[in-house]
Amino acid sequence: MTQLVKGEIVAVGTELLLGQIVNSNAQWISQELANRGVGVFYHTVVGDNLSRLEAQFKESAERSDLIIITGGLGPTDDDLTREAAANVMGKDIIQDDEALASIEAYYARNNQQMTPNNKRQARIIEGGDLLHNRVGMAPGFVVQQGQKLWVFLPGVPREMKAILEDDGFKYIEKYFNINQTIQSRMLRFIGIGESQLEHDLKDLIEGQSNPTIAPLASAGEVGLRLTARSDSEEKAVSLIEEAEQEIKKRIGKYCYGTDQDTIQSKVMQLLREKELTISAAESITGGRFTDTLVSFEGASSICKGGIVSYSNESKKSLLDIPELILGEYGAISEACAMSMAVNVSEKLNSDIGISFTGVAGPDPSEGQEVGTVYIGIYVDENQPIVKCFHFNGDRDMIRHRSVKKGYELLYNLLKS
Amino acid sequence: MTQLVKGEIVAVGTELLLGQIVNSNAQWISQELANRGVGVFYHTVVGDNLSRLEAQFKESAERSDLIIITGGLGPTDDDLTREAAANVMGKDIIQDDEALASIEAYYARNNQQMTPNNKRQARIIEGGDLLHNRVGMAPGFVVQQGQKLWVFLPGVPREMKAILEDDGFKYIEKYFNINQTIQSRMLRFIGIGESQLEHDLKDLIEGQSNPTIAPLASAGEVGLRLTARSDSEEKAVSLIEEAEQEIKKRIGKYCYGTDQDTIQSKVMQLLREKELTISAAESITGGRFTDTLVSFEGASSICKGGIVSYSNESKKSLLDIPELILGEYGAISEACAMSMAVNVSEKLNSDIGISFTGVAGPDPSEGQEVGTVYIGIYVDENQPIVKCFHFNGDRDMIRHRSVKKGYELLYNLLKS
Repeated sequence: MTQLVKGEIVAVGTELLLGQIVNSNAQWISQELANRGVGVFYHTVVGDNLSRLEAQFKESAERSDLIIITGGLGPTDDDLTREAAANVMGKDIIQDDEALASIEAYYARNNQQMTPNNKRQARIIEGGDLLHNRVGMAPGFVVQQGQKLWVFLPGVPREMKAILEDDGFKYIEKYFNINQTIQSRMLRFIGIGESQLEHDLKDLIEGQSNPTIAPLASAGEVGLRLTARSDSEEKAVSLIEEAEQEIKKRIGKYCYGTDQDTIQSKVMQLLREKELTISAAESITGGRFTDTLVSFEGASSICKGGIVSYSNESKKSLLDIPELILGEYGAISEACAMSMAVNVSEKLNSDIGISFTGVAGPDPSEGQEVGTVYIGIYVDENQPIVKCFHFNGDRDMIRHRSVKKGYELLYNLLKS
Repeated sequence: MTQLVKGEIVAVGTELLLGQIVNSNAQWISQELANRGVGVFYHTVVGDNLSRLEAQFKESAERSDLIIITGGLGPTDDDLTREAAANVMGKDIIQDDEALASIEAYYARNNQQMTPNNKRQARIIEGGDLLHNRVGMAPGFVVQQGQKLWVFLPGVPREMKAILEDDGFKYIEKYFNINQTIQSRMLRFIGIGESQLEHDLKDLIEGQSNPTIAPLASAGEVGLRLTARSDSEEKAVSLIEEAEQEIKKRIGKYCYGTDQDTIQSKVMQLLREKELTISAAESITGGRFTDTLVSFEGASSICKGGIVSYSNESKKSLLDIPELILGEYGAISEACAMSMAVNVSEKLNSDIGISFTGVAGPDPSEGQEVGTVYIGIYVDENQPIVKCFHFNGDRDMIRHRSVKKGYELLYNLLKS
């Protein structure tokens, strides 16, 4: 392929504009095209309206080489994708015998009655090539116009996917003579903010074009997506690895993994490698930390269990937190977090004990402001560690951040 | 409102075009605007590229009255939404002191280091009005241009939603003097399958056009969305209530609530009304049930806490489950579930004890197949109830269904 293919995806359907469904088709197609080195520059959703469809298709034809259209090919009169596209191309719509035969065969297979309407779905734009539909009734089709390729697909996700996977992508690759690949890797960082990361990598992010380097923030951590283009997978990967080395020289200490890794999975992996067991004493997090441990297969060899000591009463009865600590320092204190971590590891006979106590809100508690959270960690016979944090956000976000931070502390501890 | 407001939604972000995330923002905003009688005619996704953004905004300004833009307002240099829109409007970008103050306050609250980059997020288009951001760092803003209204929002869904719900929608309704209304109500059912519900309401679902009646299935329950149009809220509401009455005549016994109700919130409400406390002994669910209790404000007066007895060892040490039961019947048994429910309520001194034990998979356990789950409930001095279920799905789905079913059992028990 001499140059980057410019692609776009147009979804047709009023149900998308009413918010009844989400445009997951565009996401899936975009991922697949990126892996084939096709750049997707626009997603558009238009309703079932002839003039708006025509206006959109005109513009798409002006700016893109590859136009993938999903939806609006159904049997009813408000399915206008064919008509609008044919008008824009100045082509006719014809009845395709092969398409009709496959539709009739579909109804025969399913012992269903075919309505006259369904014949409409055998209509394609003249000069088009059929794309077989393995899982549904109506086939898709492609139309070549000048240097451009139009691809028409049903809106039903599983039919759209099957058609592209069976025939569609091969047709696209052949038509555009695609022999280039895009490789992508997500580097995952925790303990550094998005702007700090951007600040430390400013020159790379601005200077780099292959691979491109794009920061992506999510609650409590930051991702950095490296995307490299080349004519071979090996070259693309080595481009990514060069950039990765330079990035890690600067902020490697915050990098915990790549791609599908999560801070939770990395902690589970380290616990498994070191053959350590863990238990949790949770107040503010209410069992959420233990839940994330148990969500992993084979958690039983690592997670002994936990105690949700949400009431002071249960802190005493289940965790033997001394009345002195609760009275003198309060339940939201370094002393209480320390005692919770130590006692839960003893109660559950685990190598590690972790504790969470704090104020999730909406109201302050024990004179401490909303978002104040103490996290304690006790490992074997070592001196327990307790850290205090102030998280922002609503009740759920504060509890979410608390759990995430617990994993960050565990990761840094286990890694060293 | 004299005529229909023409709206469109533009999402800015290369991560959308790479298929890394789906444009759920457009779906949610579209639903909310539909409920306010605003027509959404286009969804567009554009990358972080100045000239493409300018071209898109030019076109949006030509065809729409209301232009809602999500994303591209972040601290980094590839966030270009402000610049592109300002160029299209022929306006300047200014530093807003109020915005800067709120950003600085955010960093102060979180004890985080503010980098020069973050100041960029205090920049808005001249003449714009701030939209307060309750849950995040940077505010959104609106700009009036002639008869058009531009709304600029962060791409992070929870921030985008909070800003629109707090300030944004009010601003839009006032600006366009919206009085034509679409009212919508979700009826929520549990204990009845989607196909059974559709069968029982077939004639209504097919016959009704105002309100429309749309079933919506989600894990473990079914929703039914009634949507009515009218020129007054009262008329629309009464249309909905007529339909609701007919529906409840048929399947009312499965209906637990409406709209924002969840089976969890209904159970919390019943516990609060009856002044009952609860505690949980969780094995398969690993703390997830207790976590959902604690997610509610004021949970401390209802939830005493819980014990995650994930290992047999902890079932003995923390819950005093007799060796006899574990040896004779096993941990995944009616006897164990019963003992867990009774003992946790005694250990935590709560009126109600609930227990979950089962096989989440991927492998069978104690000769029981994946998806087998026992749920026990003990209320005061009554005979404990234990039910056995067989859930389909992966590990996470089985654990999710278990928690949901626990709430369903509690709801039916507390209701009667």
